[in-house]
Amino acid sequence: MKNVDQIKQQLAEVVRHYNSKGWSPATSTNYSFRLPDNPTVVYVSKSGIDKHYFAPTDFMEVDLNGKALPAFEGIRPSAETLIHCTLYQLFPEMHCIVHSHSVYSVLHSAVESDAVRLEGYEVLKGYEGIKTHEVSVDLPIFDNTQDMTAFAAELTAQKERLTIPAFIMRKHGTYAWGRDLFEAKRHLETTEYLLEVEWKLRK
Amino acid sequence: MKNVDQIKQQLAEVVRHYNSKGWSPATSTNYSFRLPDNPTVVYVSKSGIDKHYFAPTDFMEVDLNGKALPAFEGIRPSAETLIHCTLYQLFPEMHCIVHSHSVYSVLHSAVESDAVRLEGYEVLKGYEGIKTHEVSVDLPIFDNTQDMTAFAAELTAQKERLTIPAFIMRKHGTYAWGRDLFEAKRHLETTEYLLEVEWKLRK
Amino acid sequence: MKNVDQIKQQLAEVVRHYNSKGWSPATSTNYSFRLPDNPTVVYVSKSGIDKHYFAPTDFMEVDLNGKALPAFEGIRPSAETLIHCTLYQLFPEMHCIVHSHSVYSVLHSAVESDAVRLEGYEVLKGYEGIKTHEVSVDLPIFDNTQDMTAFAAELTAQKERLTIPAFIMRKHGTYAWGRDLFEAKRHLETTEYLLEVEWKLRK
Amino acid sequence: MKNVDQIKQQLAEVVRHYNSKGWSPATSTNYSFRLPDNPTVVYVSKSGIDKHYFAPTDFMEVDLNGKALPAFEGIRPSAETLIHCTLYQLFPEMHCIVHSHSVYSVLHSAVESDAVRLEGYEVLKGYEGIKTHEVSVDLPIFDNTQDMTAFAAELTAQKERLTIPAFIMRKHGTYAWGRDLFEAKRHLETTEYLLEVEWKLRK
Repeated sequence: MKNVDQIKQQLAEVVRHYNSKGWSPATSTNYSFRLPDNPTVVYVSKSGIDKHYFAPTDFMEVDLNGKALPAFEGIRPSAETLIHCTLYQLFPEMHCIVHSHSVYSVLHSAVESDAVRLEGYEVLKGYEGIKTHEVSVDLPIFDNTQDMTAFAAELTAQKERLTIPAFIMRKHGTYAWGRDLFEAKRHLETTEYLLEVEWKLRK
Repeated sequence: MKNVDQIKQQLAEVVRHYNSKGWSPATSTNYSFRLPDNPTVVYVSKSGIDKHYFAPTDFMEVDLNGKALPAFEGIRPSAETLIHCTLYQLFPEMHCIVHSHSVYSVLHSAVESDAVRLEGYEVLKGYEGIKTHEVSVDLPIFDNTQDMTAFAAELTAQKERLTIPAFIMRKHGTYAWGRDLFEAKRHLETTEYLLEVEWKLRK
Repeated sequence: MKNVDQIKQQLAEVVRHYNSKGWSPATSTNYSFRLPDNPTVVYVSKSGIDKHYFAPTDFMEVDLNGKALPAFEGIRPSAETLIHCTLYQLFPEMHCIVHSHSVYSVLHSAVESDAVRLEGYEVLKGYEGIKTHEVSVDLPIFDNTQDMTAFAAELTAQKERLTIPAFIMRKHGTYAWGRDLFEAKRHLETTEYLLEVEWKLRK
Repeated sequence: MKNVDQIKQQLAEVVRHYNSKGWSPATSTNYSFRLPDNPTVVYVSKSGIDKHYFAPTDFMEVDLNGKALPAFEGIRPSAETLIHCTLYQLFPEMHCIVHSHSVYSVLHSAVESDAVRLEGYEVLKGYEGIKTHEVSVDLPIFDNTQDMTAFAAELTAQKERLTIPAFIMRKHGTYAWGRDLFEAKRHLETTEYLLEVEWKLRK
């Protein structure tokens, strides 16, 4: 099992990599992970860090309610920390959550109402459990809000819409998660790739 | 507080990074900063430097009228130095100005008359003071000119249009500024991201 | 002649390079090579490797039926290993096969039935044996399937459609091959470039 | 003045940089320079080099007729060496020629007959001698051919169409030149930037 410092280093590299793809202008987006043997501590990105420079030291520790642990009191976690905490509670086996503000997630959610239907693509097999391209999935879209408590409640109430490990916040971006960083990364990249293809196809 | 050499190094890295994004073909674009404790000295990019190679030594010092300080006499500052000086005079708290020739700023300003309206995007929160996506801003467009004295007067006369820390020069590019490099970078990247999304959405 | 370690290192670098171009989201795509003096051993990418991190040690050895050699028993080769083996049997002079999930191959194959016609481009000379732009080629499209045995049979039955060293699997991606890595790389990049140009032209 | 090894190193870096932008799939495109004090020796890229790996040693020396100098006999220069030689003869002050197979040059030349008109853009000032955006230039398009002798004659006969230091070969790519590498680079990047903007605007 990897230790926490290794994961911080690997996820920080992924964060900078996604920034170079244009998925996180300046300080936007947020990321987290937790360890299977200590699942009530969430390592989440601090608020206001420019993702071009994101470093392993830019994670802080919060509990499952998003409250900073004593060693990190006074430091502000990402404004969307509660989304991370809610997803970890909804999906106890998940240990990493990644996010993007990709152009294509914003575009689809600006014109679609409830979901983006993705169908017949080989890359759909990037979602855990999908073994064939002969499948159709709905990537759900939730309305954006600044009220994280309300959004957490919405996610919880509509958990059944989360049939794949990703969703879009409208005109905001994509969240994706997995059992570890490796799987969360795969789920986000699978989603972003399919959104790009689908947008260019529909035009 | 960072010293001047650190800022030169950091801004030079940002300049090369923006060049790699395609925002500054060859020698185009210009950048500046000043120090809070010596606000009448402007460190501005020299004229004619290829931004692929931009180095900390490619800044020179001018006064708030754009005149080279004695140690730099005979070296030509960027042709648009007066825009930088005017912005510093209009916004005394600002200490860094960045610029791009992004494709999307040029496209919008080729088809829009006065401004690009940006509305309802999460990333609008990248502008200092904006706390919600439920907002609508007008990114102003000014006509391009080679007469920098006239442009400086125009900016000053129309200061009230500068409701966000950025504007477009028509078929030329985007200027953005902030209290420091970190904030100026955020304002430019926020603007460029939103222009890309908005262009692709309107097509 | 290069030894096997050099080729592993070079192909691994190409795999990571293609990942950075967006041709292989996460663990998708697969690659192989074989040596002219030992053509029944195929070095193929292991299943499930994230291509952002692909390393020389991520190749394993299989025979021409796609069965792992004794030293690699228990390790799963790429799910599409049989495509590689079939191409090596159909084209005995070929020693390297590369793959992409490029957006443009997926887009063309989502709207075209049998082939993408490419005509009059200088870059067509990138295909071995083509000496002029005054030529028209059909890049064949095969329907995607998860049944690799059926697909191998289909490729063999329709070998005469493979008039250039590349084909598209529908809504899946591009395969290309060559006598060595250098030539396979040229054939894939030639194909991907032409697919991008042709898509943007037809829109 | 820079020595020949410095220029080889700098131009090779530019060649790899342009490859990373997608301007030269695999072995395509070609580049050259000459020294002001020895203008009858042309340093031109060897034929068949993958531009992802282009190194300072991948230049060879030819005379102004494109014939390999004795030390390089038996090595094939780029197939388009005669275009370089002709441009050097037409423009004695020019010492560097760069080339791209950019997607946008191919797209414009697939739909336009004689030229691409570029008008009113700030970045037009990237062309030597242009001091204002209030200008209109015609980037000429020449039909592609594999007969380099015929093409050289065509260029010479139509020299008056070369009012800016660049042209397009139809469905092939862009050539640009300058008094040195620095200027040739500026002219190519200026051209490619404007072609991208103009294509996206016209759609």
